[in-house]
Amino acid sequence: MKQYKKILACYDSSVNSSRAIKHAVSLARTYDAKLYIIYVVEKTHPVNFLDRKEYLKLVKDFGKKILKRKVQSIKNNEQITAEPILKQGNVADEIIKFAKNERCDLIVVGSKGFGVMLRFFLGSVSNKLATYGKTPVLIIK
Amino acid sequence: MKQYKKILACYDSSVNSSRAIKHAVSLARTYDAKLYIIYVVEKTHPVNFLDRKEYLKLVKDFGKKILKRKVQSIKNNEQITAEPILKQGNVADEIIKFAKNERCDLIVVGSKGFGVMLRFFLGSVSNKLATYGKTPVLIIK
Repeated sequence: MKQYKKILACYDSSVNSSRAIKHAVSLARTYDAKLYIIYVVEKTHPVNFLDRKEYLKLVKDFGKKILKRKVQSIKNNEQITAEPILKQGNVADEIIKFAKNERCDLIVVGSKGFGVMLRFFLGSVSNKLATYGKTPVLIIK
Repeated sequence: MKQYKKILACYDSSVNSSRAIKHAVSLARTYDAKLYIIYVVEKTHPVNFLDRKEYLKLVKDFGKKILKRKVQSIKNNEQITAEPILKQGNVADEIIKFAKNERCDLIVVGSKGFGVMLRFFLGSVSNKLATYGKTPVLIIK
């Protein structure tokens, strides 16, 4: 029996999340697993400095762009097809929900990322993933 | 380049840690990595109900026994040679120290275990491993 059939890697373009992607790609190749790469547009973050709709559109466009780039670079450099996933909501909740719905065997996430301010508001996403949900979590430092 | 060359799995005979061992064994086989299995005798735990020395000896004997059994069962059932490691001190600190000194690429740990009371005193070992240290941590639920 394959230990990992579906791997969900969290990506936000930070150095830590790029390292997480590297591990996820190695595991997906080694276990011949399906690889998803997820970016979540944080909706619960309080926004004062911009119109809320405008802000969400900006972040959504950013997410689409970095996912597209990362999936392309994995295809070019690693010959692996990853599926990009864009969600909106609370980051940890959306990751846990997707992993559950798609029956992922493993979540791979960087220990930092999402920016200092955002982490201040959100708490550590990796800690939440480690504590809640049923899916094994690999935390990359 | 192999992603994982040295894997450190934490074991305390709990159901969760047994699941962690299963993942660690699969990864060690798949990546042809060296596998360590560690049990830490918690020394910082306050003991009132027994003589301290007597208590530590009991826990140490327990650790030795479960490590021996687990290593033997991995050898018999999985044809993999794991190295048992017994340490004394603070559980998370000793695991992080060993991983650093031996240059492990990965720590595999159950999200629970070590008993409800001990966790109350210690906090969650997996959370500490996820937060401190530099080694990637795989947390099994």
